[in-house]
Amino acid sequence: MLAEIIAIGREILTGKTLDTNSHWLAQQLYPRGFRVKRIVAVDDVVEEIAHEILSSIKYGVSLIVTTGGLGPTFDDKTLEAVAVATGRKLLLNENALKMVQERYREFYQKGWVDSPDITPERKKMAILPDGSIPLPNPVGAAPGVWLPLGSRVILSLPGVPKEMKAIFTEYAVKRIEEFREALPEARVSVERTINSGIGDESLIAQVVKEVMAQVPNVYIKSLPETFGKAVDIPVRFTAEGKSEQEAQKVLEQAIELFTKLLKERLDK
Amino acid sequence: MLAEIIAIGREILTGKTLDTNSHWLAQQLYPRGFRVKRIVAVDDVVEEIAHEILSSIKYGVSLIVTTGGLGPTFDDKTLEAVAVATGRKLLLNENALKMVQERYREFYQKGWVDSPDITPERKKMAILPDGSIPLPNPVGAAPGVWLPLGSRVILSLPGVPKEMKAIFTEYAVKRIEEFREALPEARVSVERTINSGIGDESLIAQVVKEVMAQVPNVYIKSLPETFGKAVDIPVRFTAEGKSEQEAQKVLEQAIELFTKLLKERLDK
Repeated sequence: MLAEIIAIGREILTGKTLDTNSHWLAQQLYPRGFRVKRIVAVDDVVEEIAHEILSSIKYGVSLIVTTGGLGPTFDDKTLEAVAVATGRKLLLNENALKMVQERYREFYQKGWVDSPDITPERKKMAILPDGSIPLPNPVGAAPGVWLPLGSRVILSLPGVPKEMKAIFTEYAVKRIEEFREALPEARVSVERTINSGIGDESLIAQVVKEVMAQVPNVYIKSLPETFGKAVDIPVRFTAEGKSEQEAQKVLEQAIELFTKLLKERLDK
Repeated sequence: MLAEIIAIGREILTGKTLDTNSHWLAQQLYPRGFRVKRIVAVDDVVEEIAHEILSSIKYGVSLIVTTGGLGPTFDDKTLEAVAVATGRKLLLNENALKMVQERYREFYQKGWVDSPDITPERKKMAILPDGSIPLPNPVGAAPGVWLPLGSRVILSLPGVPKEMKAIFTEYAVKRIEEFREALPEARVSVERTINSGIGDESLIAQVVKEVMAQVPNVYIKSLPETFGKAVDIPVRFTAEGKSEQEAQKVLEQAIELFTKLLKERLDK
């Protein structure tokens, strides 16, 4: 099943911020059986965010995760874009409003803000696309948003890494796993990295090609450092199957064949 | 003028590799007057890479920079995708071939590879879209590729960071600057970050909105850490103009108004 990650924020595009959020999200999604098809970073512009979401929907992506653009400022436009892309109205969500109110009461008590009042900027964080389920933010003010759309779902998370990770780990993971279980094509992947013993990637390439032609459901990738530095290039094998056992069998088969063919070439 | 960065490689999408290349490239392009519209990471699949390149072309992007997928292995598909997207034939480029040959002779002399011969896998790195100018790779084997397309250009760089940076710095920067000079809408941007003195982003948001409505050609962004931790949220001002002097004037005006309005709110 396919997933896409959309990171929203001009600071990524100007090189101010290294987008570690997408990397972290990819690391969460991959072992849970999602193939991330694309990671896109876009500007804080409704049309551009909506365009990327629509591209994902058209392609048949099951899970779209956005990060960034949920806060109180004028350039937080993610939910407006989600509404445009999905044709949903933006409505005040009472549960989200309660979450926002609770947080600002807490922040006020701690002396972090001057007033607990819900200004229009704060209220904005509770105005969600129709049908959304708000996910509590254990760290900051803006709730995460889970929007089920039949056979797919859009999960919107904040851009502040701590908030993003907290909502994902504490509230989104369970939903993602349930959602994945309900999808028909659930598959498991296993992987192992071996050392090739040689530094010539172009020779490894020939053998990889042969193994991938002979063993189905395996993906092999050589992992070179800069030329000449790595005299022992690692090679990563990733195998897929309906069960872990099946995937493991494919993996063993591929590694065995690779080792045999490489030895044959080197012995020539 | 617009730019886009396309990072190619499954390892980014599975969360194995943090895409620092795109971040570095954005840092290079922004101060040279390019607005990076999108950063996209895609899989090693010709159709998907070509699709992203075509999207950029359709949008009117002037400079498309790809990173990754130039090496000798079966999953290095970038140039095939560039050819598909631009309707160019893939042809053996004699200059590129000389570069590849030279490198492998060197690697062979250093004992890094078993033979200096140009195998099909090695030759592949010299097969470029028609009209390409190969850029020498001071570190590795695969040349960079500069493909002029009238009012736009596609620059393809390897994915190994050292190789990418070396080609960019030593051979691509000059071409990019010349290309930029020839474009009509050259604009300069300047920026400054100030401390707001307060920790409430929703209050800053109100003032930012007002300043941006009153001062044209300025972009203002508050940079919050996790709530409550930052009691003094930094605010970044970016101003544009036809000259540095003009941009600087806009910047001063915006900061002055921001400081004044924020003080008024706090005094209330």
